[in-house]
This record gives sequence, C-alpha cells and structure tokens, in this order.
Amino acid sequence: MAHANPAVGVIDTLLRGVGQVMLQNNPITGLLFLVGIFLNSYEDGLTALLGLVVATVAAYLLGADRTLISNGLFGFNGVLTGIALSVFLRWDWHVAVYIILGAIVSTIVMMGLTKLLISRDMAPLTAPFVLTAWLLLFALYQFGELHPTKLIGPMPVHPGAAIQTALQETAGGGRVAGLTSVNLANALFRGVGEVFLQDNPWTGVVFAIAILVNSRVCFGFALLGSALGGLTALVLGGDGVAIYHGLYGFNAVLTGIALGGRPDGLACPRRFLVLNWWSTVYALIGTIFSAIVFAATAVALSPIGMPALTAPFVLTTWVFLLPTAGFRALQRVSAAEVPTPGLSRAEWVAEVLGVRPRPP
Amino acid sequence: MAHANPAVGVIDTLLRGVGQVMLQNNPITGLLFLVGIFLNSYEDGLTALLGLVVATVAAYLLGADRTLISNGLFGFNGVLTGIALSVFLRWDWHVAVYIILGAIVSTIVMMGLTKLLISRDMAPLTAPFVLTAWLLLFALYQFGELHPTKLIGPMPVHPGAAIQTALQETAGGGRVAGLTSVNLANALFRGVGEVFLQDNPWTGVVFAIAILVNSRVCFGFALLGSALGGLTALVLGGDGVAIYHGLYGFNAVLTGIALGGRPDGLACPRRFLVLNWWSTVYALIGTIFSAIVFAATAVALSPIGMPALTAPFVLTTWVFLLPTAGFRALQRVSAAEVPTPGLSRAEWVAEVLGVRPRPP
Amino acid sequence: MAHANPAVGVIDTLLRGVGQVMLQNNPITGLLFLVGIFLNSYEDGLTALLGLVVATVAAYLLGADRTLISNGLFGFNGVLTGIALSVFLRWDWHVAVYIILGAIVSTIVMMGLTKLLISRDMAPLTAPFVLTAWLLLFALYQFGELHPTKLIGPMPVHPGAAIQTALQETAGGGRVAGLTSVNLANALFRGVGEVFLQDNPWTGVVFAIAILVNSRVCFGFALLGSALGGLTALVLGGDGVAIYHGLYGFNAVLTGIALGGRPDGLACPRRFLVLNWWSTVYALIGTIFSAIVFAATAVALSPIGMPALTAPFVLTTWVFLLPTAGFRALQRVSAAEVPTPGLSRAEWVAEVLGVRPRPP
Repeated sequence: MAHANPAVGVIDTLLRGVGQVMLQNNPITGLLFLVGIFLNSYEDGLTALLGLVVATVAAYLLGADRTLISNGLFGFNGVLTGIALSVFLRWDWHVAVYIILGAIVSTIVMMGLTKLLISRDMAPLTAPFVLTAWLLLFALYQFGELHPTKLIGPMPVHPGAAIQTALQETAGGGRVAGLTSVNLANALFRGVGEVFLQDNPWTGVVFAIAILVNSRVCFGFALLGSALGGLTALVLGGDGVAIYHGLYGFNAVLTGIALGGRPDGLACPRRFLVLNWWSTVYALIGTIFSAIVFAATAVALSPIGMPALTAPFVLTTWVFLLPTAGFRALQRVSAAEVPTPGLSRAEWVAEVLGVRPRPP
Repeated sequence: MAHANPAVGVIDTLLRGVGQVMLQNNPITGLLFLVGIFLNSYEDGLTALLGLVVATVAAYLLGADRTLISNGLFGFNGVLTGIALSVFLRWDWHVAVYIILGAIVSTIVMMGLTKLLISRDMAPLTAPFVLTAWLLLFALYQFGELHPTKLIGPMPVHPGAAIQTALQETAGGGRVAGLTSVNLANALFRGVGEVFLQDNPWTGVVFAIAILVNSRVCFGFALLGSALGGLTALVLGGDGVAIYHGLYGFNAVLTGIALGGRPDGLACPRRFLVLNWWSTVYALIGTIFSAIVFAATAVALSPIGMPALTAPFVLTTWVFLLPTAGFRALQRVSAAEVPTPGLSRAEWVAEVLGVRPRPP
Repeated sequence: MAHANPAVGVIDTLLRGVGQVMLQNNPITGLLFLVGIFLNSYEDGLTALLGLVVATVAAYLLGADRTLISNGLFGFNGVLTGIALSVFLRWDWHVAVYIILGAIVSTIVMMGLTKLLISRDMAPLTAPFVLTAWLLLFALYQFGELHPTKLIGPMPVHPGAAIQTALQETAGGGRVAGLTSVNLANALFRGVGEVFLQDNPWTGVVFAIAILVNSRVCFGFALLGSALGGLTALVLGGDGVAIYHGLYGFNAVLTGIALGGRPDGLACPRRFLVLNWWSTVYALIGTIFSAIVFAATAVALSPIGMPALTAPFVLTTWVFLLPTAGFRALQRVSAAEVPTPGLSRAEWVAEVLGVRPRPP
C-alpha cells in the first residue's frame, strides 16, 4: 500500500520512525506511541512531530539510502531530540530553532555511527539522540535566551547522605508510601512511559499495548525490564520517588527489548540474540546492570545537573552485544534480509553506506 | 628548493607545521602565522617554536614517515601544545619541561590517531593537541610547582543565572557596549586569532591574510566561520565579553575551513568535500553547531575550570565528515596524490603507517 | 601437569588469572600475589578470590575460548573488581552481590574489548575492570544500601591552593618528613602494592618477588616504574602523603611492565616492543607520563570524588602502543605462538573470537 500511494508512503515512513524509538519497525506501533504522547502532553506530541519530520526530511535531502529512510531509521532520534528539548527547556522560538538544528544533527550522527558500527554488526541505537541532546542541553547555561525547566540543576554529591527509599509519588506527600500495588503499578508503567520522557502511567499502558501489537516477546521484555530496573533500585536502596516515576525503568525497558526481543526484519544491519535460556539470563543481567548504569550516569552528570537520557541503555546494550560472537552459549540471529534483489548483503551494505561505488 | 638545501628543507618543514594548525600546507602561510603570534606575544611565539621543534624532532627520531614529517603533520600539535601551556600556566622551568614532554606525546598521539582513523578516511585534526594539553593541564591542581594563570578556575553552574549579553570588551568597562562596528570587527578578527589562543584583533588580521595567501576559499570560510560562530552566540544570548574576545569564533573558523575549504594536495590521507551548494550549506550548519558545542564543552569542564581548547572543532568536524559517504548530495574529493611513485595509494598508506611491510 | 589432573588445571587457571593483573602469565607469580594480598588484608584476599572465581566461571559458562580462559585472561579483571569494591565500600551482603555482578560484567567487557582491539594488535589491559568498577562505584551515591569508606568523597578544586609536598606518612604526623630512605622505600614498594590497591610496603616487596620469579625484565621495569612515577610527582610538587603511599607509583608500575617488559608467550594476541635503547627510552617516557595522567584523572573525577583506579595505565599504554608500527625506531615482538596446531594465527584469532566460523 505504501508503494502505491506516495502520501501513504510518507506517513508509513514517519510512523515507523516513531516506532523505532523502541526498536519496533511497525507503523501501527508508531501511531499508538504518538497517541500515548499526546495523551500526556500536547506540547511534547508537537515537538516530537517537529523533530520527526525535520530529521527524516534532512536524511532525504542529504541523499541517504531510501530503504533506511523508509524503515524509520532517521526519524526516531529526531523524535526523542524534539521531546527532550521541549521537556528540559521552557518553550520559546529559540527552542524551535534548537529542535530543528538538533534533528538535523541527529540524522548526521545517525549515518556516521551506522557507518562506524556496521563492521561490528552493531547499531547506533539512540546514541545520536543522546549525543545531540546532551550537547544542546549542556550549552544552555551559557545562553541567556534558553531557560531550563525545574528538571535541570546541579546536585552536589554527599557520601553517606540519607536517601528516602520509600516508594511514593512525592517526598512527604499525602499519598501512601511503600510497596502498595498502586505504587508498584505506577513504577512499572511510568517506566515504559519514560522511554519517551512521558511521566504518566496511562501513557505507559498505551505504549505497552503498542509494543504488544508488534511483538509479544518485545512486550514481555519491556515489562520485565521496567520491573527489574525498579526492583534493582529498590533492593539497593534507591530514591523512592525516582523509582515511582519510572526513572529506573526506562533504560531497562529498552535494554530488555534490545537484548531479549526478537528482531523483525529490520533493514538496518543490526543483529540480535536468538531467544533461549542462556540469552534470556544474559538479557536479564544486562537489564539489571542498565539500572545501575543509570545511577552512575546521573552521578557523573550531577555537577552540571544534566539528565542521563538513554545513555545507560546505549552503553549497556553495546557492552552486552559486542562480545556475543565470542560466547558460544549465545547465538546471534542471521543477517537481516536484503531488500534490493541481486545484491549480496555485503554489497548492499557497501552501497547503502557509500563505502564503495556500485560495480559496473 | 627544499630538496636541494637541507637547511631550507628543515625550515620548510617547520613552517608547514605552523601552517597545518589551520590546515594550510604552505610555508609562507606558516611564516605569517608566526609573525602574527610574535606581534601579540613574544613569549607565546617562543613556546610555539619550542613545541614545534620538539614535536617534529621526536617524529624524526622515532622514525615516522618522512613525507608526513615534511608536510608539517607532526609540528602543528606541538605548536598548539606549546602555546596553550604558556597561556594557561605561569612561566617557570617546569613549564618548559612540561612543553617538551607534551610535544613528544602529541607526536605519539598523532601517529596513533592517524593509524586509527585512516581506514575511515578521517584525519586526527587537532585531537592530539587537545588530548595532550588537557591531561597536562588537568594535572596542575595536584602539582605545587605549576601555577595556573587567571584564565583557569572552576565555575559552578547556576541554572537561570543572568548573562551579560551586550557585546563589549570587559564587563562594566568604559568602552561602548553593543553591536558597534568596532566591537563586531573585534569579535570577527579575534575569533581568527584565538585559533592560536591569541586574543588580539591585529593578529587575527595577519592570520586571515596568511590564509588568503594559500587559499581564497579557506579565507572565505575562515571569516564566515568566525562571523557565524559569534552570531550564533549573539542570537542565543551568549556572554558579550566572550563573544567580543572571539571565544565563539575560533572553533567555528577551523570547522568552516575543514568542512568548506578546498584541500591542497595534502600528503595526509584525509578527504574533504567538493564545494557545491549542498556542501556549503552542510559546512555552515556544522560551523553554527561548533559554536554550540563550544558552549557545551565549556559547561562540561566548568566544575574543574578547564578550557575547551579546539575540542569542539574536532568533535563537530568528525561528526560531519564521518557520514559523508552515505549522503549522495555530498561528494568527497578523490584521493590525495601519492608522493612515492610506483605505489598505489593503498600500498603507500600501508607503508607509511607500518601496517604491512613493503612487498618484495 | 595441568592437563592430566582437572583440579590442578582449575587451580592453574585461577592462579594465572591473578598473575595477569601485572601481565604475568605464571601460576607461581599469581600465588605469591595472593600471599601478598592476604598478608595485608584478609578481607581483600577473600573478595579477590570471589571476583576471580565468578569472572572465570562466567567466561566458562558463556562459552568463551578455553585457551583464553586457561591463560587467566578472564580472571584478572574480576580480581581487581572484587578488591576495589571491598576497599571503597563498607562490607555488607549488598557488596557481595555487587562483586558477583561486577565480575560477570568484567568478563563480558573483556571479551568485547578483546574483539574490538584485536585488529589493532592491542589488548584490553585492565580496561574491563576500570569501566565496570567505575560504573558500580559512581552509582553508590544514589543507593542507600551502599556505604562508601572514607576513601570516597568529592574534593572541589582550588587553583593555586598550597600543597604539602614533604614526603611523609600522614600530614602533620610524628614521623620524619622528607627524602629519608625509609620514606623513599615506602613510596617505592607501596607503589607496587597499590597495583592491587594494597597500601602496605611488605605486600609490595612480596609482589616484586612474585614478578621476579617470572621475569627479570618485568621486575626491573616494575621497580623503575614505581620510582619514576613517584619521582615525577616529587619534581612537580605533588602531595607528599600521596607519594609516600604509592599513589603515583602503581599506574607507572603497570605502564613500565607493559611498555618495557618482555612478553612471555601469551595466548592473548597482544604485541609488545622489542627491548632496545629506543624502546627503553620510549617506555620510560610513557611511565613518566602515566604519573601525570594519574593526577589528571584524579582532578577530572574530583567533583564526584571517585578513584582513578588503573585508568591512567590503560590510557597511557594504549596511546604509546597504538602508533608503534608507524615508528621505525621501534620494533614489535612477532606474533605470539598459536596454541592450536594446523591453524594460522589469523585463523586462530578468528575462531577464538567467533569472527567467522571454522572453515570446513
């Protein structure tokens, strides 16, 4: 259908771009993600669309490979850049310019990292978003026309300082604190919602359904990830308010999907693990570790008060996927199918990335 | 001429080493750069020469490829290391030892990064200088015999703190503040001067002429870079004193030259973009982004009060050059000519870097 | 003997894992290292064993190459992770869980980095330990169940602050300060001891003997490294208490061994330099530089008060080994012998790391 009607093709491409934020190459999933975002915040939905369109159009104008574009691989970093700049900065026309610049740069970083990682059979994941958004956000202290929201601010570290570990919505708030089912459900689903920086349990429910539409395995690992991320923080005595709001969940959700989920014929030459007992244990260890990496990243950035974004997911997933070929207990999924007939996978990769010209 | 007389050859090599700081492989340009430095500071000129000679001699003694040496590729990081240590440390014999050690290490890093990046068709740019100078400067807080100048010092970040945005020489000074032609000219030419850490508009003018001697295109992109860097900071509300003194300009100058300038038969296997409308727009976006990366780097280093140096140029240029082969709207310049007859470019690269022995 | 009796083989593997911390592939050396650790601290010895066993078993269960395992290449990062978490955290069952998780992750990072660096003829060194321990330690400020020891704590930098440079055990202590033979001997041997984070001169003496058992050249470069590291700090005016306790020595010890020491048939495809005058000078410059990099790393981490660990050794050694093929004055040792007959070194490397399947 997307081939017959250009308008449908464009919408299909854009929706896949939203779906790819959680590694789901499915336009319905992308559409439901958008519904979830608008459910929580109209403004975030619009900035997500702005980032999505600009990043995708930039890839088109620069002449990136059409197959990569139509699978949404240049859209998802733009979506996240748009939302992040909207969440951490007070709205202003400068922020719109910032989002447009950030979306363009995210597309440039995406192509560069794809080229760099392809020989390792690794994917950039959301690293283009993290790099671009970090640089744009770090700079804000130097620019008077950019105004941070209250989520930004340096937090000096104090060894041995007491931490409020009771699970609750706000410190000292009226709601019941502790391991109640309401609090646990909030932690679980807000963890899914926070992947798009949406601090809303119902948005998280919509996101979970959106994943389920595409893949039951990914759905399972997403929820398992959110649960394990929060649980890791609970066991180690993490801040109860942060856990309630899903901050220990969202990187674990993504790590769970990337390490445990099944790939679905992505054009992108990334490889994932075959699902078996060993790879499941491996994925769950990675998921737990990503929650600790989230805390570590937050501490590393605390002197300048910047957010960890999805850097813990990227770092953990790279660390756990890089060595898999050397571990015989883990099997990797065979190469993704090649969408251009008559080319071997190696030739297709070379052509897509411009590594060498098409043979005569 | 350089071939006939050894002394002329040595001077030619050293002057090209100075010219390569701004990617200009031309001894006259290098000589004029030196003139500009001495015009501003006798001490900086002498430490630049110390770094230049030590770094080049180290490459010679270690047995680096002669072609690379004679094109000045081991001198320019030594030049910058010498000046930076002189500018940020109070003079003392310890600083001389520090510069000698730094210049040697810059040559070692240069060869390592060249080897690492060659397969990506990328060049180390000034990364050897940035890495070496950062390590040597960071350490100074631990060493009582090294005394920082007033340019070094931690600056805690304060979200939402007011910023003096009026363009002026010093905050609260007697000179007229605002967008006067004198202030704008200072920002423009000090931006060129700050590439060598020279805060002097006349030095910037001499540097601009030095570039013009070698390449009109590079001259244009250098001035355009300085203007766009300062303008970006002005639009976003950056500190007016920092803009006046060219701090938002110098990384943009280098980024403009690297992304927009024409290569001139460099022996170094780096590739640049063919100048056309698309590559010009691409270069200008990179130039603007480098000014924001400068602010981000300054913030990241503010807890320990260290300077950004030319790291924003290196990061931005790498990010913008890495993906170019994947973007069909951009064309890259074909391989640099090979100076050793009878070898293919691949063979020559392999021999220069010792990747494999010369075939029998 | 190790081949005949499985129990002996297991013990041999584990002891080599301890020996590899200082690049010594020798079970007697590993045994003496353990003796030295237990001599200083029973607790550190037990956590070292815990890390060692878990990291090695993880490699076995994940199906890593047996030759790599039996040469101790998956044990040494676990040893260091175990000790570091025990030294910087107050003991608790959470710390045991932390060590087990850290040891598993160190094995995963080890395999990943080995695969990444093999094409550059470089080894991961102790980078897996540094990365894993840093992430686990950074996170502790966010977790109420983890309690740092007094060694952890932010230290704001103050440019130009006075530094106590007199060599002494404790600032203002009763012992004689200055360049006494007792103080110098402490600095020398505590520098060797601190490689395993053991602040004890007699442990350092046992470690030195352990190295001597395996290699006189490594023994020489280890002591030379400790001496040069401390001397560099003395000349630059470093903190006298830190020098006394060997903090400027341990990274220099490792750098000295790696750059100057003779390889001893390691299965790991790493290459070192042929010992001659040029490589000795090169190694000593690297050793001196590593002491400065230690100070730089300490400053970079001072806002969050985290330890440098062996990162200065890893960075310096990578920087100095990466370019060696391009320097004709330096010769590299030829490829390590291949333990599997009938395979070329390239085929063996490919098989070990799963880069491509065994040819039919």
